[in-house]
Amino acid sequence: MAEKITPRSSDYSQWYLDIVHRAGLAENSDVRGCMVIKPHGYAIWEKMQRALDRLFKDTGHVNAYFPLFIPKSFLAKEEEMAEGFAKECAVVTHYRLKAVPGKGVQVDPDAKLEEELIVRPTSETIIWNTYRNWIQSYRDLPLLINQWCNVVRWEMRTRLFLRTAEFLWQEGHTAHATREEAEEEARRMLDVYRRFAEEWMAMPVLTGPKSEGQKFPGAVYTLCIEAMMQDRRALQAGTSHFLGQNFAKAFDVQFQTAEGKLEYAWATSWGVSTRLIGGLIMTHSDDQGLVVPPRLAPIHVVVVPIGKTDAERRDVVAAAHSLAAALRDWPREDFFGYEPITVKVDDNFNQSPGFRFNEWELRGVPVRVELGPKDLAQNACVLARRDQPGKESKQAGVPLAEAPARIVSLLKAMQQDLLERARQWRDAASYEVNSYEEFKAMIEEPGGFLWAHWDGTRETEERIAAETKATIRCSPFDRPEEPGRCILTGRPSAGRVVFAKAY
Amino acid sequence: MAEKITPRSSDYSQWYLDIVHRAGLAENSDVRGCMVIKPHGYAIWEKMQRALDRLFKDTGHVNAYFPLFIPKSFLAKEEEMAEGFAKECAVVTHYRLKAVPGKGVQVDPDAKLEEELIVRPTSETIIWNTYRNWIQSYRDLPLLINQWCNVVRWEMRTRLFLRTAEFLWQEGHTAHATREEAEEEARRMLDVYRRFAEEWMAMPVLTGPKSEGQKFPGAVYTLCIEAMMQDRRALQAGTSHFLGQNFAKAFDVQFQTAEGKLEYAWATSWGVSTRLIGGLIMTHSDDQGLVVPPRLAPIHVVVVPIGKTDAERRDVVAAAHSLAAALRDWPREDFFGYEPITVKVDDNFNQSPGFRFNEWELRGVPVRVELGPKDLAQNACVLARRDQPGKESKQAGVPLAEAPARIVSLLKAMQQDLLERARQWRDAASYEVNSYEEFKAMIEEPGGFLWAHWDGTRETEERIAAETKATIRCSPFDRPEEPGRCILTGRPSAGRVVFAKAY
Repeated sequence: MAEKITPRSSDYSQWYLDIVHRAGLAENSDVRGCMVIKPHGYAIWEKMQRALDRLFKDTGHVNAYFPLFIPKSFLAKEEEMAEGFAKECAVVTHYRLKAVPGKGVQVDPDAKLEEELIVRPTSETIIWNTYRNWIQSYRDLPLLINQWCNVVRWEMRTRLFLRTAEFLWQEGHTAHATREEAEEEARRMLDVYRRFAEEWMAMPVLTGPKSEGQKFPGAVYTLCIEAMMQDRRALQAGTSHFLGQNFAKAFDVQFQTAEGKLEYAWATSWGVSTRLIGGLIMTHSDDQGLVVPPRLAPIHVVVVPIGKTDAERRDVVAAAHSLAAALRDWPREDFFGYEPITVKVDDNFNQSPGFRFNEWELRGVPVRVELGPKDLAQNACVLARRDQPGKESKQAGVPLAEAPARIVSLLKAMQQDLLERARQWRDAASYEVNSYEEFKAMIEEPGGFLWAHWDGTRETEERIAAETKATIRCSPFDRPEEPGRCILTGRPSAGRVVFAKAY
Repeated sequence: MAEKITPRSSDYSQWYLDIVHRAGLAENSDVRGCMVIKPHGYAIWEKMQRALDRLFKDTGHVNAYFPLFIPKSFLAKEEEMAEGFAKECAVVTHYRLKAVPGKGVQVDPDAKLEEELIVRPTSETIIWNTYRNWIQSYRDLPLLINQWCNVVRWEMRTRLFLRTAEFLWQEGHTAHATREEAEEEARRMLDVYRRFAEEWMAMPVLTGPKSEGQKFPGAVYTLCIEAMMQDRRALQAGTSHFLGQNFAKAFDVQFQTAEGKLEYAWATSWGVSTRLIGGLIMTHSDDQGLVVPPRLAPIHVVVVPIGKTDAERRDVVAAAHSLAAALRDWPREDFFGYEPITVKVDDNFNQSPGFRFNEWELRGVPVRVELGPKDLAQNACVLARRDQPGKESKQAGVPLAEAPARIVSLLKAMQQDLLERARQWRDAASYEVNSYEEFKAMIEEPGGFLWAHWDGTRETEERIAAETKATIRCSPFDRPEEPGRCILTGRPSAGRVVFAKAY
C-alpha cells in the first residue's frame, strides 16, 4: 500500500490506472472488457445517480425498466443504428447448458433460440417497440421516461470507466407531439448535464452539436457536453440526441393529433454513464491520489484523532465523535441543499497519523481534521483541504466550537475552486488556430482544444482525423459569429469548431 | 379504461393480471419472458430499494458492481450451483453481428467467443472469483458487499413480477473469518428482510430454514421469509443463505488467520427481487385496484379539487395547493422518519370527480382528499382512506387547518392496519394438521399454511409434493417444541413444519 502513485508528468495513463486501483475505485474482471466497480467507486456513482435522478425528476421525468435483451430483428429496423452497433454486440444464441459428466457444463445444442437476442447496447429499439402500444393520442404525449441500467458494447480496447464492454448508465427516451417540443427537450437535458457537470462534478464543459460524422447512429443530430482532461485531451461526457421521427417510423408509432390526423411521434434520447467517474478523476486528481468535489464525495470529512497514551486517545476520540455529531447535524439547507454531511472518524491507532492522512488523501476525502492532545488542550483542531495538499495550507488552532462552520465553508469553497481551477486549465489550453500547419503542430504540442474553421464536410473532418488523430468535439453554442476559411480546404466556414484528441 | 377489474372471487389469477395492467405496473415485452416495468411499478421498486438500501447500510454493508457475464467454466466450479442453474441460462456465444445486404443483420460466424459467457443468474461465482484477490488476511474480513442489478433465469412459465426471465434484485455477498460470524450474518439479513416485509410492506412473514430439497444450490442451508397471499398460497419473498466454505473452496479464497494459519473464508448470500412487488399486490389489493402501504407509496396523498364554474375551480385549486404545500412541509421525523410526504393535486377537470376518484383508487394512493365548493365554504375537506373503500368510511367536514395532521395519522393507521389485517388473514388460514388424509383435503380446500409433522427426509417431502402440490415452506424459528409423528410415514418428528401450495 505504500507504493507511490506514478506522477502525472511521467506517465499520465499509468497515473490514471494507479488512482483507479489505489483509491479502490475499480478493477478489471476475468471477463474480457468488463470491470468490477469497487465499493468506493460505486459510492461515487451512487452520489452521481442520486443527483442526476433528482434533476431528471425535477424536469418531469419518471423512471421505468425495459428488457436487457433485444431481438436481433429490432436492431435491423433502424438502418443507421444497425450499422452503428452491429459490430460490437453480445449475442445470446442459447438458453440452456447441460452438465456433461467429466467435462463440466456445455451449451445444450437443443436449446438454440429461434431468433438471437442482443444484449442491449442502448435501448431505443426495444423502447420504441413498446411505445407503439403506449402512444395512441396526443393526450399520451409527452412521454418522459428514463432508465437506469447496464449496457454492453463489445469494445476491443478497454480502459477502466472510460471504455468498457459493460457499463452502467441512464438513458432517457422521450416522445413528443411536435418537432419543436422534442428539440426543446434535447436542449433541456443537455443543460441538465451541463449543470450536473459544472455544479456537482466541478467540471466545466462546452456544449453544442456534434458533427455528422460524430453523431449517434439513428439521430438527426447529437448535442454533447465536452470536457478537457488534465492531459489536454477531450472527454465526451454526455450526449442528448434529437431523433426526429426515425424510431417512430421504424416502429410505427403514430398518434392522433388534436385535429384528428395521424402523425409519427418525435423523439429524443440522452445518456450519461460510469464514464463520468473517469472524467471526474482526470479533471481533479493529483499525484497524491483522488480528489473528489464535495458534492459527490461519499465521505466529506475525516476526523483523525491522534494520541499515544490510553487517556490521550480516549479524550481525542471523544472530541472527534462530538465534532462528527455536530457536522452530521449541520442543516442540510446550508450544504448544497439535499444531503447530510458524511463524517468518518478514523481511530485506527495501529496506524501512524501520517499513514492515515495519506490513506484518506489517496481516497479523496475533501476535508481532514487532525485532533491531537495539544490541539485538544486548546479546544482546537487542525483543518486540511484535500485540494491544497502540503503543510502551508493547513489551518491550525481552529476552535472546536467554530470547526463545523469553518469546515462547511471549506467544503463550499473547495467545490467552487475546483470548478474555477478546471476552467482556467481548460481556457489556458484552448487556442484559436488559423492554418493547418499550425494545427498539426499544436495538436501534438501542447495539445488542447483547437478552435478552427472547418468547411462543414465529412470528408474534411475525416482527413483531419486521419492525419492528426484530432476529431471535432462540437460546434459550441456560444461560439462567436466569425466567418472564416477552412484550415484544410480554404472553403468558407460560418464559425470555428473545436478540435481535440479525445478519449 | 372503464373496464372493471375481474373480482378476486371469480378468477384470482386474472384479478392479479388486471391489477398489474390497470394500475400501470408492468407488462409483458416482445422478448419472451421479459417484462417492462412501467413507471408506476418502477416507482414502487424505487421506494423498496431506498428503504432496503438504508437497512443494508445501517448494518454495515456497502454496494459494488460485478460483471453481467460469467464465464461458463465458473459455473461448473461449484457442482450444486451448476446443476441448479445450468438448465435456465442465457448463453452469449458471439460478439458481433454483420449486416447482410437485403437480409438485415446476422450473427457473424467469425466472431465466436472462445469460451461462452452466461448472463448471471446469480453472482456467487464471479464475485468469489474476485474475492480471491481481495481477501488475504483476517484483517480483510468481514467483507460486507451488496449489489443491485438485473439477473436472468430462463423460466419457461412466467408471470409478471412473480417469475420472469429477467428480473431486478439485490444480492448480498459476504465473507467472514469464522463459521459463527457467517451464520450470524445470514440470520441478521433474514431479520432485515423480515423487518422490511413487516414494517414497510405490511406483509407478515414466517422465518426459518428451508428443507434440503428447497435450499439454494450451493448453500449449506437457506433461510427464508415466507408470506401468505390472499388466495392462501405461499410466496417465498426473500432468502438468506449460509454458504459455508463451498464457494471459498471452489474459488480458492484462503486467508491468513490471526494465528498465521491458512483458512477458507466463510460465506453468506441473500437476496430479494422485484418479486416483492407481486407479493405486495397479492397481500393488500382489492377489487377496486391496487392498495399500497403508505411507506412504499410513490404518492401518499391525492387532492381532488371539484368545481363547476371557473371561480369555483380557481378557489378549490388554490386551497388544494395550499393543503399540498402544508403536507409536503410536514416534518419527516413524524412520518416514518425519512421521506417527505408526496402529494398530487389532480385538477384535471376534463374528468368527472368520480372518474378521478376511481383512477387514484386503482393506482393505490393511500389517502384521497376531496375538496369542493361546499367543503371550502366551511373551510373543510373530505378524507378517504384507500383501504376502507365506500362512502361510510369517508371523513367529511374535516377542517382544512387540521387536515395535514389528520392525514398523517390516517397514513400511520393504515400502515398498521394493513399489517394487522394481513396477519389475521394468515393466522385464520393456518391450521395444524395431524393426518395425511386431513392434509390432502385441507390443502385443496380451504388451502393455506398447514402445520404438520414431517420425518425430515427428502423422500417424504417429494412424495407429498408429487401427490398434493404442497411444498415445505419452512421450519419456522418460533415453532413450538412438539415432538410428533410424520403425517405420511409415521416416523418421529421434532416439530411441525409449514406446508403450502406456493407461487
